[in-house]
Amino acid sequence: MTATTPQLLPGGRDLDAAIAEGKRAYELDRAHVFHSWSAQAKLSPMTVVAAEGSYVWDGEGNRLLDFSSQMVNTNIGHQHPKVVAAIAEQAAKLCTIAPAHVNDARSEAARLIAERAPGDLNKVFFTNAGADAVEHAVRMARLHTGRHKVLSRYRSYHGGTDTAVNLTGDTRRWPNDNGTSGVVHFNGPFLYRSSFHAETEEQESQRALAYLEQLIAMEGPDTIAAIILESVPGTAGIMIPPPGYMAGVREICDRYGIVFIADEVMAGFGRTGKWFAIQHFDVVPDLMTFAKGVNSGYVPLGGVVINEEIAATFAERAYPGGLTYSGHPLACASAVATINAMEDEGMVTNAARIGEQVLGPGLRELAAKHRSVGEVRGLGVFWAIELVANQETREPLAPYGGSSPAMAATLAACKAGGLLPFANYNRIHAVPPCNVSDDEVAEGLRILDEALTVADGHTS
Amino acid sequence: MTATTPQLLPGGRDLDAAIAEGKRAYELDRAHVFHSWSAQAKLSPMTVVAAEGSYVWDGEGNRLLDFSSQMVNTNIGHQHPKVVAAIAEQAAKLCTIAPAHVNDARSEAARLIAERAPGDLNKVFFTNAGADAVEHAVRMARLHTGRHKVLSRYRSYHGGTDTAVNLTGDTRRWPNDNGTSGVVHFNGPFLYRSSFHAETEEQESQRALAYLEQLIAMEGPDTIAAIILESVPGTAGIMIPPPGYMAGVREICDRYGIVFIADEVMAGFGRTGKWFAIQHFDVVPDLMTFAKGVNSGYVPLGGVVINEEIAATFAERAYPGGLTYSGHPLACASAVATINAMEDEGMVTNAARIGEQVLGPGLRELAAKHRSVGEVRGLGVFWAIELVANQETREPLAPYGGSSPAMAATLAACKAGGLLPFANYNRIHAVPPCNVSDDEVAEGLRILDEALTVADGHTS
Repeated sequence: MTATTPQLLPGGRDLDAAIAEGKRAYELDRAHVFHSWSAQAKLSPMTVVAAEGSYVWDGEGNRLLDFSSQMVNTNIGHQHPKVVAAIAEQAAKLCTIAPAHVNDARSEAARLIAERAPGDLNKVFFTNAGADAVEHAVRMARLHTGRHKVLSRYRSYHGGTDTAVNLTGDTRRWPNDNGTSGVVHFNGPFLYRSSFHAETEEQESQRALAYLEQLIAMEGPDTIAAIILESVPGTAGIMIPPPGYMAGVREICDRYGIVFIADEVMAGFGRTGKWFAIQHFDVVPDLMTFAKGVNSGYVPLGGVVINEEIAATFAERAYPGGLTYSGHPLACASAVATINAMEDEGMVTNAARIGEQVLGPGLRELAAKHRSVGEVRGLGVFWAIELVANQETREPLAPYGGSSPAMAATLAACKAGGLLPFANYNRIHAVPPCNVSDDEVAEGLRILDEALTVADGHTS
Repeated sequence: MTATTPQLLPGGRDLDAAIAEGKRAYELDRAHVFHSWSAQAKLSPMTVVAAEGSYVWDGEGNRLLDFSSQMVNTNIGHQHPKVVAAIAEQAAKLCTIAPAHVNDARSEAARLIAERAPGDLNKVFFTNAGADAVEHAVRMARLHTGRHKVLSRYRSYHGGTDTAVNLTGDTRRWPNDNGTSGVVHFNGPFLYRSSFHAETEEQESQRALAYLEQLIAMEGPDTIAAIILESVPGTAGIMIPPPGYMAGVREICDRYGIVFIADEVMAGFGRTGKWFAIQHFDVVPDLMTFAKGVNSGYVPLGGVVINEEIAATFAERAYPGGLTYSGHPLACASAVATINAMEDEGMVTNAARIGEQVLGPGLRELAAKHRSVGEVRGLGVFWAIELVANQETREPLAPYGGSSPAMAATLAACKAGGLLPFANYNRIHAVPPCNVSDDEVAEGLRILDEALTVADGHTS
């Protein structure tokens, strides 16, 4: 424990007591908790005993700046008082009710989401999280079109349930690729590692669209129900679609009667400096999935926003899908409070400003200074630092799907410096909350600067 | 509004204000909310403005006895004060944290669940609800065995995501049957509508097991990863497995190295008068899915309880599955409070007593009296009334997968009498909370008695 560690945690909780509780929690965790995406015996997970705003406290009482937003979901930071109060208030009023009934929290959440969604996306089907939002969006597209295939890009993540993980274009799909039918993957635009031998963003955009159109011709346009794309791919690398790409996909979808699903689970609700990332590209999708930022994950919640045409398909014909907690009152009340707090406190605007004026420029300075940085890219509070062993060859500092001693040392340096980043393969993502302060960003950049010096030692 | 309607709602809320709020909620619902399993234009959903214990209040301020437990999930009734308080307390402490980290609420929930689970089911993988619990249980079984096929019974429900709904053995699978590979359905025991021409429960059990064993021989035992069975099938009709059946399935699984998955999403956590329904049959499954009753659905939560052998498969090898809200602190804190409240207040014992001494005998009296009742069956607070147009032919009062004027009139009579039942096809399920009182059950039976008189008018 450092000398600057406060002796009281947020809410006036005693630090020593919290550390003791954390030790017991760790023991019980190792005895009884099975963790996501892990070899259970190889884990030594960090205990979190408290969190507030942009900070978390670990099991030793160390305060860490949370540049991960956990799973890139706490867009309003930890423990926002208005949302905490709204949860307590709704819990006292009505925790849960079946999806068949009408509930005021659900109705109001649907209104707030529909009002912010682009175009005529006006109806909300609530789910528990992002994976089932994707499952249901795909189902709607298949039934609406009467077609079966769904196209998704490599370097993407769409969720952990079977259909969602088979749509996913990263290594998490590999051990789950058991024959789910109708999924076709394609390469999207990513200039730094271009599949199309492009040298400019414009070229990358045009060539990626031409490639997609060829693929559709080969697969048969009339067999394709949907194209699903993260508006800005998240865990896979925060590759901002180049100019014209998303509009081009929209045009292709229109031409062939294909449903365009924008996956906004990670990129939505302020993350990129707009309510939805698709709004950077002046494109209206047919279906839009969301989760995470809708209520910062304070209560599990996700959903699909549906346009009028697809909603009309299920006006007289039953939609064959549902779930017990669809439109859960407690989850929806926390979404209402979150969206209102984001609006009232200008968090989306702050995220845009931080990206343009503080975090983006700061990361570009680090890129210029550190030979381990191949590229930095992002929007709002959604930034990737692509680490390389060699700037010329662009060899990643860890292999696709894996880690490396160099990455482990770099991440350890972040943690030792007091920073909790989001890491994936050879990348560090700087994804603080939308209401992060300038000082907090400066603190994060200082720690990243030191950690990147460690990474530099592993370059050639 | 009847003369007996109270002018104040639970928590001292003003009734007229709540009715006005409910009207606005209804308008916004119709404008923006997309409902589960429905043709959206044909809906006229009931508004719920308040709930407490075994009662809910509709949009006109009428109080209804909740014999549905909503989606058969509010096992501790509505708004249990200990769980409401625990949610507010955990919200103030820590709403959410990534699944990679250790959290005290998650650890304690895992301990309480593992301690109640049978045998060596000792590790808990938390999900958001039942469907993703089933998805992950199937994935674990496939990876553990290296085999692909999964067997499930007709007349079952396993969830709404793609793999889960394809495992489902009711009509909700039909429009979603798009080629998910490896699912094989079989007929399970159901003496009242026997597939096996059996005349006794013993015969039904033996013949259903022989049929299952033949099917396995034809499919190839070495191709089968798992058999998934609701310990007591829920929505599909609350058919209690006859003596020897579940033990027989366990023996078959052991013989062929097949993983036995007990789906306890609806039957678990006190519903049948034991913590888990499988405990009625002295059988230990390999994996057990749960949701609903674990925290009465106050916060979305589900999971898989894993035995030592399957957990060991993922000790050194990564489990390729996960989700943002796995082990969500707010959800887990509500599970801790729910399980402790159920324990402290003897709710599981109460459910068993109600089934044996009050609800079961009462329903049998109704069956003897009403010609529309073909059979009543159940355990604890988990009962089905099978309605027929003719007791001799056993013709259902509504077709499989549909409704009928007779069923609609019967359900309308329930509602008019002040009762909210759970209905499916030709059945009414009497599924009150585990802490329902004798007087409340008596009230429900009186209303059912009147409603069944309406049903009797549709019999021949």
